[in-house]
Amino acid sequence: MSRYFYEHRVRYRECDPMGVVYHAHYIDYFEIARTEALRSQGISYKSLEDHGTIMPVLDLAVRYFSPARYDDLLEIQCDVTMSDSKVRVLFDYEVRRKGESEILVSGHVRLCFFDSARRRPVPAPDWVLASFPQKKSGE
Amino acid sequence: MSRYFYEHRVRYRECDPMGVVYHAHYIDYFEIARTEALRSQGISYKSLEDHGTIMPVLDLAVRYFSPARYDDLLEIQCDVTMSDSKVRVLFDYEVRRKGESEILVSGHVRLCFFDSARRRPVPAPDWVLASFPQKKSGE
Amino acid sequence: MSRYFYEHRVRYRECDPMGVVYHAHYIDYFEIARTEALRSQGISYKSLEDHGTIMPVLDLAVRYFSPARYDDLLEIQCDVTMSDSKVRVLFDYEVRRKGESEILVSGHVRLCFFDSARRRPVPAPDWVLASFPQKKSGE
Amino acid sequence: MSRYFYEHRVRYRECDPMGVVYHAHYIDYFEIARTEALRSQGISYKSLEDHGTIMPVLDLAVRYFSPARYDDLLEIQCDVTMSDSKVRVLFDYEVRRKGESEILVSGHVRLCFFDSARRRPVPAPDWVLASFPQKKSGE
Repeated sequence: MSRYFYEHRVRYRECDPMGVVYHAHYIDYFEIARTEALRSQGISYKSLEDHGTIMPVLDLAVRYFSPARYDDLLEIQCDVTMSDSKVRVLFDYEVRRKGESEILVSGHVRLCFFDSARRRPVPAPDWVLASFPQKKSGE
Repeated sequence: MSRYFYEHRVRYRECDPMGVVYHAHYIDYFEIARTEALRSQGISYKSLEDHGTIMPVLDLAVRYFSPARYDDLLEIQCDVTMSDSKVRVLFDYEVRRKGESEILVSGHVRLCFFDSARRRPVPAPDWVLASFPQKKSGE
Repeated sequence: MSRYFYEHRVRYRECDPMGVVYHAHYIDYFEIARTEALRSQGISYKSLEDHGTIMPVLDLAVRYFSPARYDDLLEIQCDVTMSDSKVRVLFDYEVRRKGESEILVSGHVRLCFFDSARRRPVPAPDWVLASFPQKKSGE
Repeated sequence: MSRYFYEHRVRYRECDPMGVVYHAHYIDYFEIARTEALRSQGISYKSLEDHGTIMPVLDLAVRYFSPARYDDLLEIQCDVTMSDSKVRVLFDYEVRRKGESEILVSGHVRLCFFDSARRRPVPAPDWVLASFPQKKSGE
């Protein structure tokens, strides 16, 4: 498991008539956080795709505790865990205002590695696995 | 419980470089389906807000089985269930191509009724409850 | 030149903290209107792409006169004009609330036909031209 | 006139089946760039709204020369010019890949200052004007 923090400034177009972040946009924040989490471990998702491996989303869940507002500076905490089979990766998220402890939103997104030519799930390429510091046992 | 079907044509801007619907957009489809499901029961979400009741999202979950593609005509099945307390409403979704039986995506979104002036959850207004044909017992 | 009308219900996620449609979303409405305008003339944009012709956007402009609001039913008027060279198509738009005469937003989007294999602009395929009722001279 | 540069990493959800940034998303980049351009001059758009002044968009135009691609690091150049009347502000944009000279996209967005209580255009508040280094004469 490895942990990454991504900062995001809430944009006007992301806020709805209640004056808060529209709930679907947290899914976008999650995408950016995991892309940058992977990049911080030396894994470019673009390179992955260029080498024939895509990562479709299998499932996700989100819980909303308290709303983020326009112009808030958010900190999205992203924990990455590789499955034992190396076919799936789990990203766990917690969203807070930067410098505050209250969790506004939490969630997870599970993806798999998928061979785009053979059209089926595959274990992560070795160069990806080599970049993961430690797999969590028992997942 | 009541059931509603909403049809949606997949738009170009909703598809990603894999050529399929980007996963977050199903959350948008869910919003439209539940707005129209409520409207079909005589409940305008706009009127609800104009009368001081908003419906924030509490949690959601989505499972992705097979991708929808550009220009697909989708049918989003939306089942609406009021909680016993009348404070929360659960929307269950299944997404298929119109005329096909395969479920591409399933999910749920749970919302509550929230008094925007007093800033706390409340039971649904009577005029909303009157529009619900039958509440499911035991939820 | 041919004229098409597309109806759109304003969605919650499209409205910003001012309570009105966020300005960028009109560009999305324009895309949907022109796709359906072409479809009404027997031209599926998906088929066009499947046959190797894509239609990148060259330029666009939008003027905002008055805001549309949540749950408004809009009517997007879309006029389609083929250039003399058959390489470019101009879409002119006017957005009104359905049944009203006031123009809320107007704009245009210009696209070209582009051969995706040879990577260059080309005249519209004959089967597309055959579907255009009348080209406007002198454009 | 003042100049600001905003960097943006192209996200997966922003790219369409052509593998390039969907044209409407540049409007979003423009919003972020101008918010940050104002912030760099000590003007928080949020504070402006909190003090009763909103900035609706009057018109915009975009020209697309060459597409940006997934994971590109873009540099959005944003020039800010106050009108002589102080009622309108013009933002001119040029989008390049960072470190390259080719302009991929250019455009402008014009906004006005608008008193949200009195519902009419007004000159920019003095504290905003004080933050503008120099107004361009003759605009």
